[in-house]
Order: sequence, then C-alpha cells, then structure tokens
Amino acid sequence: MKIKSIKGSVVAPMGFSAEGVFCNIKRIGTGKGSSKGPKPDLALIVSDRPASIAGMFTTNQVCAAPVKVCLSRVARGTARAVVVNSGNANACTGRQGLLDAREMTRLAGARLKIPSGQILVASTGRIGVPLPMAQVQAGIQSAAAGLGATPDHAGRAAHAIMTSDTRRKEVALECVLGRHRIRIGGICKGAGMIHPGMSPSGRRPVSLPRELHATMLGFLTTDAAVEPDALQWVLTEAVATSFNRITVDGDMSTNDTVLLLANGAAGNTALRLGRGGRPSRELLQFQEAVQQACALLARWMVEDGEGVHRVVTVRVEGARNTAEADAAARAVSNSALVKTSWHGGDPNWGRIIDALGYSSARVVERKVDIGYSARDGRKILWSLKGGQPTRVSFAALCRAVARPTFDLHIRLNLGRGRAALQAADLTEAYVDFNKGDISDPASMGG
Amino acid sequence: MKIKSIKGSVVAPMGFSAEGVFCNIKRIGTGKGSSKGPKPDLALIVSDRPASIAGMFTTNQVCAAPVKVCLSRVARGTARAVVVNSGNANACTGRQGLLDAREMTRLAGARLKIPSGQILVASTGRIGVPLPMAQVQAGIQSAAAGLGATPDHAGRAAHAIMTSDTRRKEVALECVLGRHRIRIGGICKGAGMIHPGMSPSGRRPVSLPRELHATMLGFLTTDAAVEPDALQWVLTEAVATSFNRITVDGDMSTNDTVLLLANGAAGNTALRLGRGGRPSRELLQFQEAVQQACALLARWMVEDGEGVHRVVTVRVEGARNTAEADAAARAVSNSALVKTSWHGGDPNWGRIIDALGYSSARVVERKVDIGYSARDGRKILWSLKGGQPTRVSFAALCRAVARPTFDLHIRLNLGRGRAALQAADLTEAYVDFNKGDISDPASMGG
Repeated sequence: MKIKSIKGSVVAPMGFSAEGVFCNIKRIGTGKGSSKGPKPDLALIVSDRPASIAGMFTTNQVCAAPVKVCLSRVARGTARAVVVNSGNANACTGRQGLLDAREMTRLAGARLKIPSGQILVASTGRIGVPLPMAQVQAGIQSAAAGLGATPDHAGRAAHAIMTSDTRRKEVALECVLGRHRIRIGGICKGAGMIHPGMSPSGRRPVSLPRELHATMLGFLTTDAAVEPDALQWVLTEAVATSFNRITVDGDMSTNDTVLLLANGAAGNTALRLGRGGRPSRELLQFQEAVQQACALLARWMVEDGEGVHRVVTVRVEGARNTAEADAAARAVSNSALVKTSWHGGDPNWGRIIDALGYSSARVVERKVDIGYSARDGRKILWSLKGGQPTRVSFAALCRAVARPTFDLHIRLNLGRGRAALQAADLTEAYVDFNKGDISDPASMGG
Repeated sequence: MKIKSIKGSVVAPMGFSAEGVFCNIKRIGTGKGSSKGPKPDLALIVSDRPASIAGMFTTNQVCAAPVKVCLSRVARGTARAVVVNSGNANACTGRQGLLDAREMTRLAGARLKIPSGQILVASTGRIGVPLPMAQVQAGIQSAAAGLGATPDHAGRAAHAIMTSDTRRKEVALECVLGRHRIRIGGICKGAGMIHPGMSPSGRRPVSLPRELHATMLGFLTTDAAVEPDALQWVLTEAVATSFNRITVDGDMSTNDTVLLLANGAAGNTALRLGRGGRPSRELLQFQEAVQQACALLARWMVEDGEGVHRVVTVRVEGARNTAEADAAARAVSNSALVKTSWHGGDPNWGRIIDALGYSSARVVERKVDIGYSARDGRKILWSLKGGQPTRVSFAALCRAVARPTFDLHIRLNLGRGRAALQAADLTEAYVDFNKGDISDPASMGG
C-alpha cells in the first residue's frame, strides 16, 4: 500500500475544521516555545458529522479532570469535536476541576450547536491551578468563530496545544483502501514529563511496565469510516508501538491523551473487526497508515524534547521475554548516567551494562553484547561481546555516538524477547529549563 | 547509652592500622575531587589479629570481580585486612578481572604475612578497563610499608578510596558496653552512581525494591568482640536504614560494598545472637552505635553527591505497606522533574503527586497530603491536603524549599506503611560532570 504525505494535518481529512486562538490562559510570552507575542492556548477540532472515536489515556493513578471526562465519553463510541487548552492541566483541581472540564464541553457544544456529550476535552500545563473559565469561555467563542479547513487553521490548532515545545508537530497521510482514497491527519504536543504509558481504559494492563511516566497530547482525524471497536483496536496498536515507546525524562503525566476521530466522509464501507476480533486486510492497511502517522509524531516529540541534543533508539534483543526486553530498554533509557554520557558523546558502555544489571530483566554479564549503528543502520560497531570489551577503538566508538541520532543495540542472548525505545540525552538545558522560575509561578509547567 | 564522637575513623578502634598511597591507577589530577598533585588511589586497612567479618554487596546482576571475591570470603566469617583501589572498578573484566582481584589479595597477604584468604578487596572507578597490576603491586608495597594508627593514616586511606567525592568521609564513635569501652570507626566514598541496594548475599531479597541503582564503598572497624552471625545481623540492619536509604542519581553500581571488621581488641565477651536469633541488650546497643556511624556516613555521601545543592529527606507515611511506601519514596526521589524543581527552589507539588501516581504504590488522589518542614522539624507546612491545594501562600512554600536541606512529608492515608529516603536535587553541575571528557577516556567514572 502506498502512503503519501499531504498537507493540512487534522483538517486534511474531509469534513474536519480547526482553529487555535489566544485567550490568555497562561501568561503572555512564557515558556521556552513561546513565539513573540501571545502564543495561542485554546484549540478546537470539529467534524461536520458524528465520528467514531477511540482514545488512549494515561495510566497514572492521579489523572486530570479532562481525562476522566473523556474516559466516560469515549465509551459511547462517537463524538463530534475536541476542545483543548494549554497553560493549565486542570489536574488535582478536585470537584471544581471536573465541573470546569464538563463546562468546557458545554460551552463548545452551545457555540457549535452540538450536544455537549459529543465533545471531548483535553488540557495541559500546570497542575493544581483552577482553570480561568472566563478566559476559556472567550477562547471557545473566538475559536468557534474562526473554524476553517485550511492548513493555516490546523497549524494554529497545533500551535495552541504546545507548552514547552519549540515547534508544531503536524502530519497528514493519504492512502487508498479498496476503491476509496482516505486521509489521516494528526497533531501532537509534548516535550517534558514524557514517558507515556497509555491504555484505552486508563487502567494498567499487565503488559505495561509498572513504572512509567509525560504530558503528551495527540489528536488524530480521518475521513475513513471505521466502527468504534475497530478504531480502538487500530489506535491501541498504533500507540503501543509509537507514543508508548518514547521517553524524554521518565516522568509519566497525569494528562496524557491520544484521540482518534473517524467521520466516514470518504464514503467507504465502515471498516470493522471480523470474527474473533480478527482485522480484515483493509483494516490492517488502515492501521498501518495510522501507525505511520503516530510514529512520525512520536519521533518528533522526542527530537523536540526539553533540552534534547541527541535521540537514541535503544534496541534490546534476546531478553527472556518481551516484558523483560522492555524493562531493560527502559532502565538504560532512563538512567541519568547513561543519558548524560550520551550528551557528552561518550561511548560509556560500562554505564549501560550497569543499568541492565539493576533492571528487572534477567541479565547474565558474560552473554551481553552492546553495539552502535547509524539510525536503522545494518553495520553495528560492537563495543562489548559476551560481556568483554572488543578491539574496536575508542575513537571509532566516539564517532558512532557523536551523531545527533544513533541506534544502541543490546543483545542479552537469553531468549527471544525484544523491544525498542526512542530515548533522549540529559543536558544542562533540560535542568535549567525545569528548575523553573519561582519569581513567576504561572510560568512553571506541571 | 552514651555515644561519643572521637578521632581517627578506621584506626580509632584498637588493633587497626591503615594507609593510603598514590600509585597512578588513574591519571594524575583528574576527577572533580582531585586535590592538587597526585591523589592517593590505594588503601590498606589492617587488623593486628583475626577479626569477625560482615559484608553487604550490590544486588546488581552485573557485579565486579572484587565483589565476587568478597562474597565467597565473607562467608568464612573472619578476615584480617582490606585492600582497596580507586580509579578502576575491575568490573566487566572477565576471567582476568577475577585473577587480578585475587592477585591483589595475594600481594597484600605476602607483604603483610597474612594468608591471602584472610584479605578482602574492593575497587571503584571506570568499568571495563583491566587493572594496571604493576601500579597496584607498587601501591600495595608502599601502603604496607606506611601502615600506622594515627588519624593522618586513616585520613589518607579515606582520601585514597575517593573518586568524584570532594571531601573525605570519616567517622569514629566510642561507647561503653557493659564494663568495656568499645570503638567503631568508618570511612566511605561515593558521589555518583548512588542508589545502593545491598544485601549480604548480593542476591535480591524480596524486601528490596527491584529497581535500585551507585558505587559506594564503606569500611567499618570495631574493637568489640562480636561473633560473625551477630555481626552480619548488625550490619544488615544498619545498612538497611542508612546506605540503602539514599539516592543521588538512581543508578545502582556494580561495585557497592560495605565491610565491617570486629577484632575483639576491647576484650569484651563476644556479642552473639541469642535463641531464635534474638539480639541481647548489649548487641542492640552495639547495633545502635554501628547504625549511627552508617547514618552519618550515608548522609555525608548524599551531601557530597555530584553537583548536589540540596538534600531532601522524603518521608512517606500511610502507604498500604512498607514496600509501597518505599516505592512511592523512590519514585519521587528519582523523578527528573521533581529533582530539577528542588534545584530551582520550586515547591512544585504537582510534579510530586504526578510521580506518586505513576509509582507502583497505591495512591488515591483525594487522600494525598504533601507538606514541607525544616529538617526533622515538627512544624509541617502543608501545600496539599486531601488532594487539594491548601491556602498556604506560594511565597511561604518557596521559603520552605529554599533551605539547603528540608524534609518532604507525603501522607497517602491508606495504611500504616512508612519509609524515608535521603534524596538530592538534579543540577546542571551533575550533567556537566557526568557528560565526561571524551578527550580523556581514563578520566571517565564508571
């Protein structure tokens, strides 16, 4: 199947419109990503007809009010619109927070003439601060008035959901399913508190690591017709291999949310799961396209992570099982010492094998291989084989890790479990950004 | 029982001598802690008679050669001396590493006229580099020739085991057990790769968290007479509440080792465990003194942690059980976002409740209390009660976390589990130090 990149992100699929506006939820000009002048902080994404809906939500036990609202509404199977604010997470805001999240959907519904139960909501920003509802209300009015389907409209929506991001993250793909041309669009945000572990229910499935940690928000649209069950299957699979496979700082947020709306405007026969939940060939093709969109967005998120200079793909093979491969990859990817050595361009495999050794994966020192390659490269430069340093020169290893992006290959040689994670280095810039500016409480990200 | 602080650390107990010398194991003048001129890098601690021995060792699955040698020798119950080098971890050095570790004990034994099986060995420094045995041999000769029992001798030994430490860590205490005055001395090192999780066997007991992470070395001496079983019980208890309750960066080392030698020179009747393993009153008193020595050394280690500006005692109460209290304390203490906010003097409780929420401890948002006090202070300033922000002003909270050291109080209000951890902030200085200097491979800590 050919998948083509097109313009317009969330409004590329037919029947969708969007807008992003500034309504002063956070202060003007704060945050690393702020452009000159006010950065938009409220976005609307609207389908002109009811859409099937699928969602993935943080498995953090402390979850924000908008996540709670979405969890109950996604279960209904259809929705029409999403309202999103940045600058305030509406988390740890108690009963008032829940009322405010519902009020956001009521205000949007009233303005768009859609029942409020058909509106979803997401927030990102500081934790524990009540939403400034007057500003939010003005923002919803103004965003609804400005809705449109040009790439500029989508771009403003992508900008409005940003917090510490330095650039917009937008994707749109087009492919042909049977006789129908369909489109998938997406935007996302997230630069810190990035270690998503999302599930459809917000509860932890057994396969998810117990210690996960980001606010990331992702909103995808498609004009394909897909039944809700099939759409959830597509999104769950796509997130499992994209957003749930990245880490910037190992901190899982209270607000992580990915939503996918499928409005059927392309006119195909609705894609569905077959008997026993088996996907049809067309559904598999659709899934592949959604996965590609999510993978691009997830990669950009790590590349734009707070203070990130290097992105490293950690590939673990030969673990006793997938869960152990994942645990090994996460221990290495979240080790402060490994991350600082990446920052320094230091091929310090000693810190890597140390992290493997304290991970919950079974590791036998004399079986461990550690090597480096260019991104997705075939030629691996092995620094360690069977637990012993190879004769590869230190200079050659330094060159391998001097690249802005490279693959780290870890083979435990104990079984067939494998996992990969997109990880980032830890820099002075990350620390400087996150130590905050206590002279301005409103500027501090949650 | 009165416990008095005295001079001389490891040589304060009768019958012990020590020395630290420079033998060029790592290069001259490297490392944050290096004084002007060559820093000593090889230490000997010697008892003039056989001593009971107890040990605690890293539970990292990848453990260094000297740890393997100690594990088998501590089981014999007695020893006479410890030989220690810094600048090279002798980890991931394969069969040659094991031969080299044993050779260190043979060289020391030959020089001291002690069977090599009575000598213990420890190393700290870069992983994966063969020990420079010619230098080690010269160092052992020179240290053995210089052995003495003055505070200066002990100070040189304390200096020789340092890597990135900026200052020596030495303690000596004196107390009276029954009719006998006994002394306990100790030195330790460790500033990075500090998240010890040690056990007597090097295997993970159920009660230890699965993801632990330092090189720390600690050497304690006493002239009390204590039987080996009782001595191991004393050390296990003391480490559980001191060295195993600190974290600098969440990385558990391949080399963590604490040894305690009890030579009986004080002339007391040997302390022993009673029926069913119950400690006698005198053994409990002795344990209290050892624990106090370990607690002081552990605290100094966090305070001297790489780049550390603030030390925070994280106190979790009301978890469902002790293991969950510990998991909650470790999630908060190792969160990059929490640690950077401490650095910035930012009372960002949103990041704290976020970390609690993704920990493996059960957390119910509306039950969580979060507060601050002066170190060991009684007056707690609550920023969050029942999951909701209190009316305490932001300025007052800022003052509470502006101190170089403070206590963070977390109450989960779900049960009676409690745990405390001494944690550190994450600073630009930590990142700068650990990104290494690839122009000088020998300077990079393991």
